[in-house]
Amino acid sequence: MRNLVLSASVAVLGFAAASSALPGKAWAEEGMWTFDNFPIARANATLGTAIDQPFLDRVRLSSVKFGGCSAGLVSDAGLVMTNNHCVATCVANLSTEAVNYAETGFTPKTREEEIKCPGGSAEILTEITDVTERMHKAGEGLTGSAFTRARDAEAGRIESEACGDAADKRCQVVTLYRGGQFKLYTYKKYTDVRLAFAPEDRAATFGGDLDNFSFPRFAIDAAFIRLYENDAPAQTPTHFAWNASTPVEGTPVFVTGSPGATQRLLTQDQLASVRDVVLPMDQLIASELRGRLIRFSEESEQNAFIAMDPIVGVENTYKRGLGRMRALTDTDFLTARAAAEADFRQRYAAANTGASASDPWSDLQQVQPTLRELYPAYALLEGGTGIGTTSVAGGSQLFSWARTLVRGAQERAKPSAERLAEYGDARLAAVQSGLFAERPVYPGLEQVRVEWWLSKTREWLTVDSPYARALLGSESPEQKSARLIEGTRLADPAVRRALWEGGLAAIAASDDPLIQYLLTIQEPTRAIRTEWEERVQAPTDRASEQLATARFAAYGDTVYPDATGTLRLSYGTIEGSDVPGQRWGPFTTFAGLWDRATGAAPFDVAPKLLAAKDRIDADTVLNMTVSSDTIGGSSGSPVVTAAGEILGANFDSTVLSQRNAYGYDRKVNRSVIVTTGAVTTALRDVYGMDGLVAELGVR
Amino acid sequence: MRNLVLSASVAVLGFAAASSALPGKAWAEEGMWTFDNFPIARANATLGTAIDQPFLDRVRLSSVKFGGCSAGLVSDAGLVMTNNHCVATCVANLSTEAVNYAETGFTPKTREEEIKCPGGSAEILTEITDVTERMHKAGEGLTGSAFTRARDAEAGRIESEACGDAADKRCQVVTLYRGGQFKLYTYKKYTDVRLAFAPEDRAATFGGDLDNFSFPRFAIDAAFIRLYENDAPAQTPTHFAWNASTPVEGTPVFVTGSPGATQRLLTQDQLASVRDVVLPMDQLIASELRGRLIRFSEESEQNAFIAMDPIVGVENTYKRGLGRMRALTDTDFLTARAAAEADFRQRYAAANTGASASDPWSDLQQVQPTLRELYPAYALLEGGTGIGTTSVAGGSQLFSWARTLVRGAQERAKPSAERLAEYGDARLAAVQSGLFAERPVYPGLEQVRVEWWLSKTREWLTVDSPYARALLGSESPEQKSARLIEGTRLADPAVRRALWEGGLAAIAASDDPLIQYLLTIQEPTRAIRTEWEERVQAPTDRASEQLATARFAAYGDTVYPDATGTLRLSYGTIEGSDVPGQRWGPFTTFAGLWDRATGAAPFDVAPKLLAAKDRIDADTVLNMTVSSDTIGGSSGSPVVTAAGEILGANFDSTVLSQRNAYGYDRKVNRSVIVTTGAVTTALRDVYGMDGLVAELGVR
Repeated sequence: MRNLVLSASVAVLGFAAASSALPGKAWAEEGMWTFDNFPIARANATLGTAIDQPFLDRVRLSSVKFGGCSAGLVSDAGLVMTNNHCVATCVANLSTEAVNYAETGFTPKTREEEIKCPGGSAEILTEITDVTERMHKAGEGLTGSAFTRARDAEAGRIESEACGDAADKRCQVVTLYRGGQFKLYTYKKYTDVRLAFAPEDRAATFGGDLDNFSFPRFAIDAAFIRLYENDAPAQTPTHFAWNASTPVEGTPVFVTGSPGATQRLLTQDQLASVRDVVLPMDQLIASELRGRLIRFSEESEQNAFIAMDPIVGVENTYKRGLGRMRALTDTDFLTARAAAEADFRQRYAAANTGASASDPWSDLQQVQPTLRELYPAYALLEGGTGIGTTSVAGGSQLFSWARTLVRGAQERAKPSAERLAEYGDARLAAVQSGLFAERPVYPGLEQVRVEWWLSKTREWLTVDSPYARALLGSESPEQKSARLIEGTRLADPAVRRALWEGGLAAIAASDDPLIQYLLTIQEPTRAIRTEWEERVQAPTDRASEQLATARFAAYGDTVYPDATGTLRLSYGTIEGSDVPGQRWGPFTTFAGLWDRATGAAPFDVAPKLLAAKDRIDADTVLNMTVSSDTIGGSSGSPVVTAAGEILGANFDSTVLSQRNAYGYDRKVNRSVIVTTGAVTTALRDVYGMDGLVAELGVR
Repeated sequence: MRNLVLSASVAVLGFAAASSALPGKAWAEEGMWTFDNFPIARANATLGTAIDQPFLDRVRLSSVKFGGCSAGLVSDAGLVMTNNHCVATCVANLSTEAVNYAETGFTPKTREEEIKCPGGSAEILTEITDVTERMHKAGEGLTGSAFTRARDAEAGRIESEACGDAADKRCQVVTLYRGGQFKLYTYKKYTDVRLAFAPEDRAATFGGDLDNFSFPRFAIDAAFIRLYENDAPAQTPTHFAWNASTPVEGTPVFVTGSPGATQRLLTQDQLASVRDVVLPMDQLIASELRGRLIRFSEESEQNAFIAMDPIVGVENTYKRGLGRMRALTDTDFLTARAAAEADFRQRYAAANTGASASDPWSDLQQVQPTLRELYPAYALLEGGTGIGTTSVAGGSQLFSWARTLVRGAQERAKPSAERLAEYGDARLAAVQSGLFAERPVYPGLEQVRVEWWLSKTREWLTVDSPYARALLGSESPEQKSARLIEGTRLADPAVRRALWEGGLAAIAASDDPLIQYLLTIQEPTRAIRTEWEERVQAPTDRASEQLATARFAAYGDTVYPDATGTLRLSYGTIEGSDVPGQRWGPFTTFAGLWDRATGAAPFDVAPKLLAAKDRIDADTVLNMTVSSDTIGGSSGSPVVTAAGEILGANFDSTVLSQRNAYGYDRKVNRSVIVTTGAVTTALRDVYGMDGLVAELGVR
């Protein structure tokens, strides 16, 4: 159900280092292309379309990034369609046990009733500028973490120079082709994003975890937000035209969004580390957290309400991990991957002869034992690679705020260029926005997360490791987590704001147990980060850069960069699937939904949707699949025709498609789409959203 | 902490099929040898000892099998030492929240106070007879499951003929060298086994899961049971002499016990299936059960009491699985394993030329896709291979009884030779003994287990599979498990006895929801078992038999059979370890225990033990390590000198040693032993067990 990105830290980490497409013969539809290097001719030849640069510009300016999700403008008054699961956190933040919008849906009948999402922000990519030369110059002659820090600092300078203090802009230096290119992306930024519509949660999640990452599907996983400026709906003359007609098999489509991270140039040795070390650890500890949360949710109605969203999150990431494990243990897939690598190595060897020729594959091979040794500590203490499911402190909100406050104070005391990259001047606005947002905090849930994290950290790093000792002292995970969560006052936004604004002095003077705790664990956690950067990330970056360069030499410029959480365009057609374990036509209808419903969760139809059954044309197409190249982060991506009409929103893919992280496989890769027809039906026939229906121009 | 066997079903399953030692160069101390083929000369040459056949006979008659554990006679009045974790179920069954022997220890001051372990039985191997010819003849000309069933039936006949209805004997046809040999093992059987001493649980489990499968250790994991006959202590003139003197590094030792199952002749393709499919699935679902149980245990004091033993069980098996995963992703280990296979294949090819030569490796390779496809259903519905952690219905006691009642009734309606092997006439006594035992049942815990199992089965087999539909109908796992566990009356032993004795008619007439449920799921669960036997087990058996034969041809008779849960003898010396991640001397002392104690669980010293601190010589050796070849099931194995004196009981090994399942590695393989010195100290200085101290002949 969720193709959103869970980790924002991907770009700075070693594992996100690989940068470009699987070499060798590519499928005609392979690639998540940047908008300034889209293969217009190839796409038109493949699809029989006639798109041009103005089309690309309109699509880009109609594409919205919202949190870890993608979205698309659908009216001239800032209305944006995305997935319901992309607004789930907003819905949870706006809900209470008494007024639970996840249960009832959120259905404001006027714009005045639309409510701001706490901490929500959205952005539209307005400009792309090449800054490769400046970035390369900044790193010249440096190695190790000095190299990394110098480039981070230069990126920060470029971003600050370009965006200054402008509240409505964001600047981001984007690394493409593993440092082969650097581009400055400038975004128009909206910090007032309001919820305009969300269906009943079950209407969007019918089938729950069991149907997640599968097809046929029957999920109205769509919602609307609206961008506001100066307390009024934003004016957005450029937007997608709403097309709610019945979709047709074989129609060419373009998918525009911000896919999170692919690792398509990982070498066989790197893939083995993912298969043997990264995924197994991440999956095993996630599975235990899942068990703890499930039991927690069964203890009371209140706990069920509190744990719903966290459980969905863990289950989604875990299931994605299962799909990746399956790819990495699929002999056919691995054989194809190995053949592509062999071809690339052969070309590389032919072009780089002589005793002094370097061998980036061998360099990467030599990094792996260190990576395998350091990964558990790095993942548990600093949040991992972004490939797996690991998040520090089990995703505790209070812990995360405390860490931001302590590290933020320590880092801001230094010049911007010397800070950890995420605290550079250009990025502080985003940090503050997350920190000051009003969000409900549930201590019971927080304690489950922190206890689990301390317990797993001690187990995986061993009780005698200096890390475990620093984290726990003589306390048990149960004692420590209870004491920290009971004692902290960080749930209060005013307390957080005062600590942030008070800087180091306020942090040092605070008697908040969680702040004190974060102070005591800075040394070991920063140490493992530095060690990882020096011994894993830096040599991985260096070798990966060589590979990227070699790849240009070997295969020319018909290549696209790995996904990096920035705007991309991919293309394909509406079609079903016909491989073992995945055989179906491209469409489902409401008739199929009624048929699949058993009444027992998660196969219970949402009450309002069920009540509208007689008003709904059962033949209306609900979900469909397309062949275009997507990955986590593509959630909510508009699916548009060559005429720029929106046909639906991408919300998922299949378990087999998870191999897409490591290589596009046309045979199995399918994205799952909620259609504009189904959304129109929901708005008009189920939830009485006549205002939105009119705004969309539905006749 | 636990090297006991969790699955009794190993012998009949496909995965236990491989039968013999890793070919190629063996370590001098490699091998878990049968008592009728022990390499006396080689052991004496390696160790510098002078053991002989009478020594072997004495050791055998002093060795006791107790449940899934090993044990040793230490007095002429039936006194037996084993591990505390081997009596944990007995202790739990005898305890209540009010009188919790796990907390207080069980310390009867007279024999009259010793209490019978519900359902407990013990046995001593008295005779070994070769029945290879009869068994081979029974299978002649048959294939597939007809072959399997015919041999099972012949084994049942041999067992019945030899033991008849004798209540004090058990007969077992043991498959060795994958069908190269069949031996009839005759045991003297004791069904009245009483608990004679157990320490405080924490004295035996100091360090808990964190220190489990590691060293240095500080655990008095020892307990005593006593064999009774005719309501009096059994007379056991043959027994080990108690030697509580300080152990000496380098001392040759023999370890006698019943190691459960090794898979040392699995081919590379089979190992890949274990690594890619079996272990990952088993570990992931075990991890979730662990999370559910941990949270369950935190909900109340009562739940903590109820869940203690189940959590220890899951954690132990899970940690063992981690060690196995580590072996199967260890490049050096795999390379050595591959080299051994290559050597074997080369010799095989040289000896088997010509177009008609079969290739068992290729046959096994061809089985793997089927195995990978069927494994999830087979594991979840029938309990897996015994390699992993899967147990049907999450180990629910009520479910297990219901299954025994339903299947037992159905099977007993047929002639013995046509039944599922575990219900053959010769095995019914053991089935009844387990079924009629008085055991406490905790519905809350049972419901957690069944809910988890239904939920995982639906998830792994997919909601649309016929299995999931048959198991759940239109109910959710939560609804179904609650209804079955709330409604069943099988917790009452009288109800179970009446249903057993009433046979099929009683089962058919029963309105017990769990009995009715088990009736409805017989068709699908029996179907997957049959399919597994036909498509996986039978071809695996056939090819493995060929490999075993070829192995004799290639390497002569200096080989031992894979462990099969029957009595074996291995040997080695007292020594520490000096490899990366595992460096320590061979001994720990009580001084080390006091030093490691933090006061917070699981590093809290048990109260009575702590109170005795001043009376204990801190230099007394507590635990030690030896190099002999052991595996799960060796728990409680007596460690004896060449003079037949007992020095301690094996209770664990290390995480790295888990590779022992796939190949003995002298460099890392270490068994962890609780010393007789430490046990003497506990009996004399902590628990005031003067009667036992005198009985052991301690001066």
